[in-house]
Amino acid sequence: MDLQGDFHVYDTTLRDGAQQEGLNLSVADKLTIARQLDSLGVGFIEGGWPGANPKDTELFRRAATELDLRHARLAAFGSTRRPGVVAADDPQVAALRESGASVVTLVAKSHDRHVELALRTTLEENLAMVRDTVAHLRAEGRTVFVDAEHFFDGYRANRDYALEVLRVAAEAGAEVVALCDTNGGMLPDWVSEVVHDVIGSTGARVGIHAHNDSGCAVANSLAAVNAGATHVQGCINGYGERTGNADLVTVVANLELKLDRRVLPQGLLRDATRVAHAVADVTNFPPASRQPYVGSSAFAHKAGLHASAIKVDPNLYQHLDPAEVGNDMRLLVSDMAGRASIELKGRELGFDLSGDRELLTRVTERVKALEQRGYTFEAADASFELLLAEEVEGARPSYFDVESWRVITETLEHRRVDEEAVSEATVKLRAAGVRYVVTGEGNGPVNALDAALREAIGQAFPEVAKFELIDYKVRILDQGHGTDAITRVLIETTDGESSWVTVGVGHNVIEASWGALVDGLTFGLRRHHR
Amino acid sequence: MDLQGDFHVYDTTLRDGAQQEGLNLSVADKLTIARQLDSLGVGFIEGGWPGANPKDTELFRRAATELDLRHARLAAFGSTRRPGVVAADDPQVAALRESGASVVTLVAKSHDRHVELALRTTLEENLAMVRDTVAHLRAEGRTVFVDAEHFFDGYRANRDYALEVLRVAAEAGAEVVALCDTNGGMLPDWVSEVVHDVIGSTGARVGIHAHNDSGCAVANSLAAVNAGATHVQGCINGYGERTGNADLVTVVANLELKLDRRVLPQGLLRDATRVAHAVADVTNFPPASRQPYVGSSAFAHKAGLHASAIKVDPNLYQHLDPAEVGNDMRLLVSDMAGRASIELKGRELGFDLSGDRELLTRVTERVKALEQRGYTFEAADASFELLLAEEVEGARPSYFDVESWRVITETLEHRRVDEEAVSEATVKLRAAGVRYVVTGEGNGPVNALDAALREAIGQAFPEVAKFELIDYKVRILDQGHGTDAITRVLIETTDGESSWVTVGVGHNVIEASWGALVDGLTFGLRRHHR
Repeated sequence: MDLQGDFHVYDTTLRDGAQQEGLNLSVADKLTIARQLDSLGVGFIEGGWPGANPKDTELFRRAATELDLRHARLAAFGSTRRPGVVAADDPQVAALRESGASVVTLVAKSHDRHVELALRTTLEENLAMVRDTVAHLRAEGRTVFVDAEHFFDGYRANRDYALEVLRVAAEAGAEVVALCDTNGGMLPDWVSEVVHDVIGSTGARVGIHAHNDSGCAVANSLAAVNAGATHVQGCINGYGERTGNADLVTVVANLELKLDRRVLPQGLLRDATRVAHAVADVTNFPPASRQPYVGSSAFAHKAGLHASAIKVDPNLYQHLDPAEVGNDMRLLVSDMAGRASIELKGRELGFDLSGDRELLTRVTERVKALEQRGYTFEAADASFELLLAEEVEGARPSYFDVESWRVITETLEHRRVDEEAVSEATVKLRAAGVRYVVTGEGNGPVNALDAALREAIGQAFPEVAKFELIDYKVRILDQGHGTDAITRVLIETTDGESSWVTVGVGHNVIEASWGALVDGLTFGLRRHHR
Repeated sequence: MDLQGDFHVYDTTLRDGAQQEGLNLSVADKLTIARQLDSLGVGFIEGGWPGANPKDTELFRRAATELDLRHARLAAFGSTRRPGVVAADDPQVAALRESGASVVTLVAKSHDRHVELALRTTLEENLAMVRDTVAHLRAEGRTVFVDAEHFFDGYRANRDYALEVLRVAAEAGAEVVALCDTNGGMLPDWVSEVVHDVIGSTGARVGIHAHNDSGCAVANSLAAVNAGATHVQGCINGYGERTGNADLVTVVANLELKLDRRVLPQGLLRDATRVAHAVADVTNFPPASRQPYVGSSAFAHKAGLHASAIKVDPNLYQHLDPAEVGNDMRLLVSDMAGRASIELKGRELGFDLSGDRELLTRVTERVKALEQRGYTFEAADASFELLLAEEVEGARPSYFDVESWRVITETLEHRRVDEEAVSEATVKLRAAGVRYVVTGEGNGPVNALDAALREAIGQAFPEVAKFELIDYKVRILDQGHGTDAITRVLIETTDGESSWVTVGVGHNVIEASWGALVDGLTFGLRRHHR
């Protein structure tokens, strides 16, 4: 299918999703999320607002060389020109042009009060701003979408003006006018009515951008599509300001599986659960277990009463087959992973588990047991590959044998305000037949341990000099259990060419970090020694 | 209004909500939740299944003397009689009778395949079971509702039979037939169509019981009401099996505030936020910050760009007044923060900055400089309040003076695989004129520092014994800069009554944690000493 043609699945996680309270994404995070979204097959990924924000400018610069999208086009978000200037001369419009993005999504005011109060200009000038900016970017060869901000409230306040903004945008060459329920208060019947009117009155191609303030973001998106919208915006996992944006996965799953609309490339919806969880690991927000379709509880049954009936015909007890979205039915509360997903993931990493049922069962059981203890392998492919290698090859890949380690972090007595604490780690281990006792320093305990570990191992395996720890994430599991909480650490290591993620778990954050560090070095060494 | 007449708001948190994975309620918990629901003014509270479950039997026994409901009636849930017995002789029906509940909600099969597969009886006998059980309980003076389980799937599979079950129930005296989307897969348009048909074909009074598997539980409930249903079931906070039941608060708020249906006693919707959070405290599931209407982020704005417009007319930026549901507008201090949003935020925390332009400028500049260094105040209100207090009062609130600290984490030599590392911290400080040197242990360096710090300070300020660290989040900023990376730590501390979040930043994760710990204790002490 033509992803950028008949129907647009438009993700705005990196821009509108990042407005969520407490969600902070680095440029590297955004690139990782973009790759995940691309693997799900969305048609458009809104990267951010170049020019408004130096991080977003950098994102578009790096995307040009580092992002190799197979399915999606990257869109730059920005606003119409300022009042009283020529579009070509507006620095913010220039930043959009210079971002290199072939798609630009322009936010335009369509609510008369917002034009007057927030833009502080006239209704006429706002129309000219929309017209000029769209026409300018079209003349520069860009595909242009227009996000009509506060559209539904604006339509209520002044229908004629709101429709006029859309008409002007479409006439100037905008391919889509996306109706934004910016305040999120709409209900499905209202959305349906307005979309019908917009299409009838303007003939424009319509998109929908819904927020969840009434708990109806998904239903509002579907209502718009049923009324004729062919462009849907949303965020993975429903991230977004306030109550969040429409959860793109839920919307897409409903469209494909319930309304028979093909909106993703064939077969890719089966990656939905994997992608949703991998993105959650990047954002460091725990995946919501009750999330429709992809939540760990979404197909979990307290078996009891109906267990035998479920066995005879599981479809009597679920709204569809969870494999359609890469999820699994669960009869007991414990198991997160199913055989099917383990087999798929194994295949992805180059291990064919399909021929050996016993091996597959063993791996599945082990993954379940580890997940029970707090491990996650959704994002930590490298740790999962080490586990698979251990089960397939009979022993865990190992290049060194640790005796013990210790790390001290301390401040100076009566330090000055700009003097930070320093960390010092000592590691004792054997590698390639030699015993090493090495002390490393760092500006944190994990850096100190990493330094000591790499210095010791580097004497036996010089290639580790290239390895570098580039990301470190910590999550406390079992919140509310005070000091008994389990800590999960994800570490990303690079060898300068590619990077890999490993996981460690423990009651002690340093212990958990140590586990992930050891896996990270072991994975890198294994790759270089194969 | 007549709560048990025109329109039923029917809560099933204690029965269907308790099916949620990980949710376990004691009898005392259930009584507490019932009181909270009653204070919100719901018409019916489903208490559980007496006879099926000893805890539920006890609940009804204790409710008779301990539960003094002002608005709600307590309903007992149970099933129609078993095949082949007389209703009056069925022990499960007897338990319903003996529960003392004046309302009984009977679950009945309406899907032909479920009758055959799960009940293992004939379609005819199932009709007799419905007829007999309803008639028996009506003859015993009970109000009877019938939950038609798997109704929507049953209607698709065999419309005539599904409708016949409802007709039989209504004719035998059931006041309401509630259509259950047990598998949760419906979409609003389908619900609407079926409800119209049911009302047209049977004339029965219809209720709706929706699950959120398609992300449409709220919209499905509203669609049913718009099609003529006058009884809505749901759970507070959307608790429930799999993806949960319809969130009763969101449904009710939409009905009252958007569809002008009065369904609660006048004024009680303003307790929604309080009640939702109080119930969350009982279930020990943290309230979802993005929950519609009552979430802590539901009316939170990253002010920046629009702060001045928000000041003029907040209603341009929210779908309704948060006071309607007892929630508050919040302004987040983000990296786009300007003077206007800082002023608004200050007002929220009880500091009037409007009269002193110089002070406002100083605070704004300081926030910008700190955010540049990696701080965020969006989630860390307590650290922001300390900063404001420092600028307004001339000095940072301070209750102790730290000389130095040190923390060691180490493993045993040649440890066993199950032996984790341990941490030990030593803190030297002065508090209330006395010097303390205290060592604390923990299963992580931050726990050890927290233990040492609280033990030292606790000798001067005994109230810190109540303080507890309940959440800890770490974020590495400036990824890719290797060991120069900045670490940001957010810590949540509670005093058992409320909780607050503080932030620390540093190159060293332990240093950053220390900063957040010190702020957390200082904030708590300031609150207790004001």
